[in-house]
Amino acid sequence: MLKFPQDSPDFNVALSMSVVLFGFDGDQLQLLLARSQRDPFKDALFLPSRYLEATDELMLSARSMFHGLFGYDDPEIIEQLKAFGGVFRHPMGRIVNVASYALVRKEDFLAEKWESHGMQWVPIDRVPDLAFDHNDVVTYARERLKRRVKRRPVGFHLLPSEFTLGQLQSLYEQALGKTFDKRNFRKKLFKSPLLTDLEKKATGGEKGQHKGSRLYTFDRERYQRMKSEGYDFLF
Amino acid sequence: MLKFPQDSPDFNVALSMSVVLFGFDGDQLQLLLARSQRDPFKDALFLPSRYLEATDELMLSARSMFHGLFGYDDPEIIEQLKAFGGVFRHPMGRIVNVASYALVRKEDFLAEKWESHGMQWVPIDRVPDLAFDHNDVVTYARERLKRRVKRRPVGFHLLPSEFTLGQLQSLYEQALGKTFDKRNFRKKLFKSPLLTDLEKKATGGEKGQHKGSRLYTFDRERYQRMKSEGYDFLF
Repeated sequence: MLKFPQDSPDFNVALSMSVVLFGFDGDQLQLLLARSQRDPFKDALFLPSRYLEATDELMLSARSMFHGLFGYDDPEIIEQLKAFGGVFRHPMGRIVNVASYALVRKEDFLAEKWESHGMQWVPIDRVPDLAFDHNDVVTYARERLKRRVKRRPVGFHLLPSEFTLGQLQSLYEQALGKTFDKRNFRKKLFKSPLLTDLEKKATGGEKGQHKGSRLYTFDRERYQRMKSEGYDFLF
Repeated sequence: MLKFPQDSPDFNVALSMSVVLFGFDGDQLQLLLARSQRDPFKDALFLPSRYLEATDELMLSARSMFHGLFGYDDPEIIEQLKAFGGVFRHPMGRIVNVASYALVRKEDFLAEKWESHGMQWVPIDRVPDLAFDHNDVVTYARERLKRRVKRRPVGFHLLPSEFTLGQLQSLYEQALGKTFDKRNFRKKLFKSPLLTDLEKKATGGEKGQHKGSRLYTFDRERYQRMKSEGYDFLF
């Protein structure tokens, strides 16, 4: 029977939030995980998460957690994924988890502050069994990442400001879960006028940059200008 | 201060769900609205919605409401949008609304059963002020629809099984909020091999079909086959 509409709500549910943080170290796409210090899944790995109080804003809470982990936040880079509300996803009662995701530069992570809490980066293809339904959240976030990478130049959020085409290709391959032919990949990318050749070469000192490879940067201003004129990035 | 992690959740929140139902009557893209019969916004229009109990599954509840309105449901067509959780979005307390959306054929709506409850279709460009934050939900749903229409042949869910190219163009124009040049639109569409010419002409009896226009159908099986081989629909 469809109960529509009902008289009044039951206030007997709790809220939590998790953030899926994808980072790129120049070579590998990784995911930030925390280690649970409490029951019901003490010692298990899970996504950085917290319970919300009834007055906590969803997005401000996600940004506040992000700020705690990275020392800054940026409303542009955190996006809500969806509500994960499986009735039995949490053994303590009905807790709906509103998950967000963000693309970050791994080097920005305040590692020293958080590693003592068991926080760690794990390569995206080696994510272990996580507590609660967090593997489902990660799977959903990877699909969102795939779609975003195809339609917006979000990949560039993950790269250092100076990168090689090899790094860019390796990032796209990991985000999209497929491999590209080197020549075709470059041809495709140069169709979009958003890459600026810095006319200098990598020293080989940065992770994922081969010595002698050309360095590029992403022309953010030009992208913003083109976007406002209706340009649709498409990989 | 980042509270991470906390000891235990507060079970003092309630859940609701709303469905954004886009329908196409052959001519116009429309939205299904209900009229609230209770406080706090008695008589206001809002999205078909209900409160959830702590054991109600999110997606099953959306499908059950859909079933009540249309007499059938299909797990493929209902998709969660996101959680709308503004702290003060509901005057009775913290109620997080998990909204879904679906694309339907308006003719399937069980109108007689529901019109007495004040349910009505409203053209998408003439949606009035709605109760709660439901205008935000509609705006978000329209953005999702736009993205989906560009990347998947979802528009075809909205069309009758036999349609004219004029209907298809008018649907795409309303979903994407722009107008297309007729010749370019057709050229673009015929690039995707998913339209089958039925080799017959419209009688003009169906809404939005001009007499004498060719009728087409969407080759769903071919699309499924191509999709499983990696084909990416792109409008």
